[in-house]
Amino acid sequence: MHYERPQFFRVMQYAAGADRDVVDMVSGNPDWEPPQALREGLHEYADAEPSSFQYPPSEGLRALREEIAARRNVDSEWVIVTNGAGEANYLGMAAGLSAHDGSEVLLTDPVYPYYPGKAELLGGEPTLVPTERDGSLDLAAFERAASPETAVIVLNTPNNPTGAVYSLETVRAVADVAASVDATLVVDEVYDHFDFTGEFESALTLDSDRIVVTTAYSKSMAITGFRVGYTVLPERLRDDARTRHMLVNVTSSRPAQYAVLRALRETDADYYARNRELLRERVAAFTDALDAAGADYSSPDGAFYVLARFDDFPGTMANTERLIDEAGVAGMPGETFGEARSDWFRFALVTPRVETAAERLTAFFADR
Amino acid sequence: MHYERPQFFRVMQYAAGADRDVVDMVSGNPDWEPPQALREGLHEYADAEPSSFQYPPSEGLRALREEIAARRNVDSEWVIVTNGAGEANYLGMAAGLSAHDGSEVLLTDPVYPYYPGKAELLGGEPTLVPTERDGSLDLAAFERAASPETAVIVLNTPNNPTGAVYSLETVRAVADVAASVDATLVVDEVYDHFDFTGEFESALTLDSDRIVVTTAYSKSMAITGFRVGYTVLPERLRDDARTRHMLVNVTSSRPAQYAVLRALRETDADYYARNRELLRERVAAFTDALDAAGADYSSPDGAFYVLARFDDFPGTMANTERLIDEAGVAGMPGETFGEARSDWFRFALVTPRVETAAERLTAFFADR
Repeated sequence: MHYERPQFFRVMQYAAGADRDVVDMVSGNPDWEPPQALREGLHEYADAEPSSFQYPPSEGLRALREEIAARRNVDSEWVIVTNGAGEANYLGMAAGLSAHDGSEVLLTDPVYPYYPGKAELLGGEPTLVPTERDGSLDLAAFERAASPETAVIVLNTPNNPTGAVYSLETVRAVADVAASVDATLVVDEVYDHFDFTGEFESALTLDSDRIVVTTAYSKSMAITGFRVGYTVLPERLRDDARTRHMLVNVTSSRPAQYAVLRALRETDADYYARNRELLRERVAAFTDALDAAGADYSSPDGAFYVLARFDDFPGTMANTERLIDEAGVAGMPGETFGEARSDWFRFALVTPRVETAAERLTAFFADR
Repeated sequence: MHYERPQFFRVMQYAAGADRDVVDMVSGNPDWEPPQALREGLHEYADAEPSSFQYPPSEGLRALREEIAARRNVDSEWVIVTNGAGEANYLGMAAGLSAHDGSEVLLTDPVYPYYPGKAELLGGEPTLVPTERDGSLDLAAFERAASPETAVIVLNTPNNPTGAVYSLETVRAVADVAASVDATLVVDEVYDHFDFTGEFESALTLDSDRIVVTTAYSKSMAITGFRVGYTVLPERLRDDARTRHMLVNVTSSRPAQYAVLRALRETDADYYARNRELLRERVAAFTDALDAAGADYSSPDGAFYVLARFDDFPGTMANTERLIDEAGVAGMPGETFGEARSDWFRFALVTPRVETAAERLTAFFADR
């Protein structure tokens, strides 16, 4: 397997090495406070007896699985606590691939680049299905792309990088496409707390034996480094995922599980609403300034990102480096996310300096 | 993939449901205190700024990799911090399998049962190679078993379940067998701090491009639930393991990495020596009592376990349950560890009640 240092790290390193101040809008690392109860949970755990430092059940602390199950209205046996959404997606895709004779994995274009990577790691063949210009799904394109070779379809909603939020009807329609070829639909909902439309509904609502839902606390609790996520799997895929989880990781890290459990129980809706509002304000400030710069951009319905396009300045790695050096703004080249957005840049709104960034971009493009 | 709830969990659940007091000698969960600095590290981390709660580098916190590298006399670039030894072994075996046309994985008999499970998950075909009665390796058997089909050989030293500690010359000889068929040798040294001979030497000493070393802090720091381990890989396998680690887990949990780093830096040799002595005393107390019971047993050179055999009482799951119900002692059936020890039971010395357990076993077998 050829190792390519992820483009995210390449850009971050380049920005860190720049000879000037740079506004970092590269990664999806929240810059706001985690829930206070999470910190308290870690303190409490730090003083626990030695037996609390040993293996939890492979599928996760029982109390955490029960808390998740109660909140999601599922049976706790359906939940596997994973090492973040990263492992949850890996398990869901692996289970879908092993339940099917085919090896094709349908992904959207633009795509979160770890999905095709995971598909290939698992012996699958990723195929990118174009989406509409505004990021919404092109159902007819999925219908055309699906075939007896299709084992898995992966959706991400709210979407990274487009900011699209798919309606439940749309997800149901894609699940129907999956069912028509006996495939599995993996729905990654890791940005579910960052829905600006108020209309996002989890695919769990559909209660479908086609659908695997994956998510994590990485974004909602601002703890991408803790690696606590989970997957809810239909019965036909559960054994495969449990076995793989046990054989790869044994279990997820217990201090992090414990802290998340306490935060889940003690964090009120205000915490999540406050961070969502913060993001909404940043989106408005950043896109207003992009308007002033005459840029084309997507105004996201959810997640953390704005895609922007500048005339005669495609979203290449070389241009990303120019923006770092000459404008002092670090984004991600659109070419990282498939073919569809290779003219664009993705800016992550995880910095308080979005207005500074927008002003710098305006000045840079005014001078060209 | 068929899911079998691991036998460890089956036995633990059976023991927990027993209608009497049971001495738990099932799992390899240490019952002693973790290093004090580990607890302090968690407290410190709990108060860190939000940026410390975000993704560390995929291969692990730089300071942790450097601390490991300095202690192991390797370059920090060779180290990947993993989700415990479980993931480290998975990465090592996966990299060895993808570097080779063959799919055979040579394991010892008796075997730690997760190894054949991992081999099969990865599309490999496990073959068990018999060991000597005292647990030492039968080099001729490895030479006979190795073929152009052999992609990976896995050793565990100090060994679970036999307690054998292989000499560096023996490991070198197995590495030579691996080299003769272009295979990779994975050496799992997770019990390296529990060597009672004083003669254990890490396979890293051999500086061989055939050898992957895996280990974790699970046992040495009494934190099986933290999931912090690492692997040191030769250059030809490093890219494969990095890619897989990133695509499966992104990274290991940061609070646990941080706490381990602090414990590594601030824990003196006495801590490890004290726990090793504790184990040594338990081994002596338990085997003395087994002598009194007329049982056949292995006196381990390392790790946590004693294998014992009782006349006309083979190491089956049914007999394990009888020992729980009728003797009040929970061990593991030898049949879990391959063919070679199906007449035996494995007892983990991770309880202060080893003498009680031995007395109960003596009384039980005296009454039969």
